[in-house]
Amino acid sequence: MKTTIEYSDFDKLELRIGRVIEALAPAWSRKLLEFTVDFGPEIGQKKILSGVSGFYTPADFLHKNFPFVINMAERKMGEGISQGMMLMADAEVDGAASGELRPVILPVDQAFKPGTLLR
Amino acid sequence: MKTTIEYSDFDKLELRIGRVIEALAPAWSRKLLEFTVDFGPEIGQKKILSGVSGFYTPADFLHKNFPFVINMAERKMGEGISQGMMLMADAEVDGAASGELRPVILPVDQAFKPGTLLR
Repeated sequence: MKTTIEYSDFDKLELRIGRVIEALAPAWSRKLLEFTVDFGPEIGQKKILSGVSGFYTPADFLHKNFPFVINMAERKMGEGISQGMMLMADAEVDGAASGELRPVILPVDQAFKPGTLLR
Repeated sequence: MKTTIEYSDFDKLELRIGRVIEALAPAWSRKLLEFTVDFGPEIGQKKILSGVSGFYTPADFLHKNFPFVINMAERKMGEGISQGMMLMADAEVDGAASGELRPVILPVDQAFKPGTLLR
């Protein structure tokens, strides 16, 4: 396990549910998908990139709710800039060599309003 | 929004999917539920308390997968000690006064192995 942390370390993260309102596979990347994500009236929309193009298509995300970390420093990814990070599982692949992992999405209930805080 | 953080701040958290293998409402508390959570062979089991007794019953959790922060310092809650925190949404209550929030659980796919990392 990682080093023990305090609640204050957890509380530095702004974790919110966002709704993907646009999703596309940018022509300049074979790895990344680009999402426009709505976080409600207080936060607004953010562009978020994720290296899941080998595993998912834009349609897997469109109009769905997912958990995000949204107060991370903006980060250049390929020719784009990501304004946050979608939280995913790093899951074992069925039938693959033991220990092989792939990103698996974590959709959350559609009833949540965009911008709902996690804690 | 909270202060901007770096990826390294996020990476301090050990976020894993755990499976609730026991759930009960301890006689000494009106607020807390107590869970025994399996995090797989590497991590083992942890006792985790959560203040959701006014909203959920033990059966809402039993045998299901949820996301947890598991490297937080152990914390005395009532007469028990919690060895981690279940991640929940702080969601608006339908029909209640605007801004009123309640904890809402975030079950994840049952196919995930206990101990699966989130990132």
